[in-house]
Amino acid sequence: MEQIALEQAWLEYKDLVKQGGNATQLYRERVWPLLLELWRSAPPVYPAVQPYKISIHNLGTSPEATVLAILGTQAEEVYLLHTEESQRYLEWIREQSGKLVYPIQVGKSDVKTIYQQVTQLVRRFPQERVALDVTSGTKAMSAGLAAAGFFLRRFFDGIRVVYVDNEDYDQEVRRPRAGSERLVVLPSPHELLGEIDSFFALEYYRKRDFAQAQAYFAEARRKTQETRFDLYSQLAQAYHGWYSLDFKEASDQLRKLLSNLANEAWVAHPLNHWRPQLQAQQQLLEAADRLVKQEDYREQKGAWALVSTLQRLSEEERRPVLKALYAYRALELLLQERLARLGRSAEAPHLSEQEQGRLREELSRILGVALDQVRLSPKLGLLDLVALLRVLEDPILLKKPLPELQGLKGVLQARNQAMLIHGFEVPSEKEIEGVRKMLKELLSDLGRSLGMSLSLEPIPLEKL
Amino acid sequence: MEQIALEQAWLEYKDLVKQGGNATQLYRERVWPLLLELWRSAPPVYPAVQPYKISIHNLGTSPEATVLAILGTQAEEVYLLHTEESQRYLEWIREQSGKLVYPIQVGKSDVKTIYQQVTQLVRRFPQERVALDVTSGTKAMSAGLAAAGFFLRRFFDGIRVVYVDNEDYDQEVRRPRAGSERLVVLPSPHELLGEIDSFFALEYYRKRDFAQAQAYFAEARRKTQETRFDLYSQLAQAYHGWYSLDFKEASDQLRKLLSNLANEAWVAHPLNHWRPQLQAQQQLLEAADRLVKQEDYREQKGAWALVSTLQRLSEEERRPVLKALYAYRALELLLQERLARLGRSAEAPHLSEQEQGRLREELSRILGVALDQVRLSPKLGLLDLVALLRVLEDPILLKKPLPELQGLKGVLQARNQAMLIHGFEVPSEKEIEGVRKMLKELLSDLGRSLGMSLSLEPIPLEKL
Repeated sequence: MEQIALEQAWLEYKDLVKQGGNATQLYRERVWPLLLELWRSAPPVYPAVQPYKISIHNLGTSPEATVLAILGTQAEEVYLLHTEESQRYLEWIREQSGKLVYPIQVGKSDVKTIYQQVTQLVRRFPQERVALDVTSGTKAMSAGLAAAGFFLRRFFDGIRVVYVDNEDYDQEVRRPRAGSERLVVLPSPHELLGEIDSFFALEYYRKRDFAQAQAYFAEARRKTQETRFDLYSQLAQAYHGWYSLDFKEASDQLRKLLSNLANEAWVAHPLNHWRPQLQAQQQLLEAADRLVKQEDYREQKGAWALVSTLQRLSEEERRPVLKALYAYRALELLLQERLARLGRSAEAPHLSEQEQGRLREELSRILGVALDQVRLSPKLGLLDLVALLRVLEDPILLKKPLPELQGLKGVLQARNQAMLIHGFEVPSEKEIEGVRKMLKELLSDLGRSLGMSLSLEPIPLEKL
Repeated sequence: MEQIALEQAWLEYKDLVKQGGNATQLYRERVWPLLLELWRSAPPVYPAVQPYKISIHNLGTSPEATVLAILGTQAEEVYLLHTEESQRYLEWIREQSGKLVYPIQVGKSDVKTIYQQVTQLVRRFPQERVALDVTSGTKAMSAGLAAAGFFLRRFFDGIRVVYVDNEDYDQEVRRPRAGSERLVVLPSPHELLGEIDSFFALEYYRKRDFAQAQAYFAEARRKTQETRFDLYSQLAQAYHGWYSLDFKEASDQLRKLLSNLANEAWVAHPLNHWRPQLQAQQQLLEAADRLVKQEDYREQKGAWALVSTLQRLSEEERRPVLKALYAYRALELLLQERLARLGRSAEAPHLSEQEQGRLREELSRILGVALDQVRLSPKLGLLDLVALLRVLEDPILLKKPLPELQGLKGVLQARNQAMLIHGFEVPSEKEIEGVRKMLKELLSDLGRSLGMSLSLEPIPLEKL
């Protein structure tokens, strides 16, 4: 009924305008009351009416659109961002919408005030639905309000940018055909474009949160149906395994990825650019997996990969407890590997009487205690390993000046008393630095002897 | 010079329009050539000209503004998002700007195509400066392009939303006064509002990244000069210490925070709402600090706090290696505390002959090996502690069915062979679950006996 009356009125209005009538007055008298009635009783909102708690509207020189937006959002509290020029419409809008409105004056290019007002309101109602209506006002105001909406939506889920769209703009009278207007939500790019998930994936990848990266790559694949994301997903999964110290998972996933990249369909996949690096990583991670499984230090490349990984984890870790733990274990592994090269095992060193005596002497020097106070423990701790390697004439440890080792004795001895091992100690940053320095030196030496020219790092992803 | 000629031309143009001349034609002939000359030689860009690699412009029915925007952004590649209606301006824009432009047709409310085009372009040039010009086009197009800009800027640093503003809009001729136009960048809310940093802080706080939260609260304080953020910053710093197992830092910072909250100036601070909880946390964390310093298990509340913390860390950790480590240490602490209640110490248990015999018997049952194969180690491991507590008739451990303990023997014995302790083992999720189950049961028991009614959790921050 209403719709038919409105169509009728619109056609009559157009005729009268063509005959030279006052367009604005005719519209207000003949068309507007019917349009208003329609929006009051059943506002055309796409896809469906969902009332908001708060609505914020830019107000320029098209107050009718603002009234429609107010009726469409059905907000309990209505804020109008008006300029000096559009102030004169406030009273009319209040009348027509039947709502009490809160006016806020802004300059026509004053995005700062728009940002402030929106921010204040969403802070007051962080859990509520808030509509930002960009239909009216200057371009700066519309763009500023939309900017606020899309920026703040990261923090406040309930924000939506809306506007009054029309299906049919009448060029003759330069107005939307009455009845063709509808309130729509401006969709977020994330809703419309599946590949946005791949941007989130990249963000997490760069932060080295490979588990989250993998989940987002999988989501991008699902939404876009583009199989190229599968390969990134495999890469992220491999790297997640790697930095969780699950070397089997890491090397298996990299092997699958490499096999996919070798497939003709993927010749042009950007990851193929990194094929040599990925291949080298796969081999190293496989060697690390063998070392872990067989506990055989002849897997020197595996040891190098494992220790490099622990060193990296120690570097990126912020909590001192864990930082120390990674560094301790990495140093221990390197010392164990050096001992293995000399044909000994840290678990069962089988020392001769003479060696035991010399080890005691060495420990007495490092610890600065009398020889008869030195007791050898059945299992060799970090400091014991260092001393034993000197006794066995390991070239690098032999060259270490005694004061340097004396400086490290406290932190090396404290290992088993560390908070996450058996005690309550948390080494200081400075103490950990000492451990990490020795670790770095021994790792470089192992790398050199194996001819490792590169450091072991995830490949950088600049773009997909 | 140019500026003066332009002013002159503008005044003449206005006079001629008043005398009834054709406004559009007069503007194009008399004003536009001078304005164009000005923008070609020295485009008025605020705050300064910074050429872009790519520019993307909405094109509606004001092609002049688009030409100015093209000259202002000085991009190497220019894309025009035009509608069916504005297609007719393309050739003129090419001529006037002297640039080759790439036209892309979009519907006047078609934000999806806008999102797609912008996304494609920024993906191709992820490191470059890209200008999105919202001056012309429909409101949906402007809002859509601004939305794309502010959404994608999270991932692509180089994106800027720009528009041609004017200092002086002439109401008589309904045009910006020629020469008052300038190209401006629409600033991000983050640039203009210091409190946005507090939103980032909240985001990190909820993800339990308290170090980042603290840094953002401090930044919000610096930018806004609002001292209320100092208190949130202290809270985040305290919690960062807490979950880094630095109980001294945690309890010191909470004490400072509580003293600030008691200050008359902060009576209305929202954190005062949580005062009782914060006070209770401060006391518990202080007790944990005493336990850690004095290694005295009579600090039962401290033990409860420390173990609760380790349990929480184990829960939220995704990497199995660390998940296990936290759970192992937490369980060990609870077992040590129970032993202390019975007047024994795990470090030096001082077992009588009889007790040693009964411990050996208990271990033989749990391990399922002959009595003569059981060896007691001088330091008690997790399984030894469990067995000893049964021998000493600890009520909870005594009640455990033997098969349950037998199911746990592998994972408990493997502790010292864990990847980050001395070996290469990574317990499975299922094995860790077993450890965590026993841990949870013993922790509840300790909590009950101390009358702890709440779990120990950071206070929730809904809004600031």
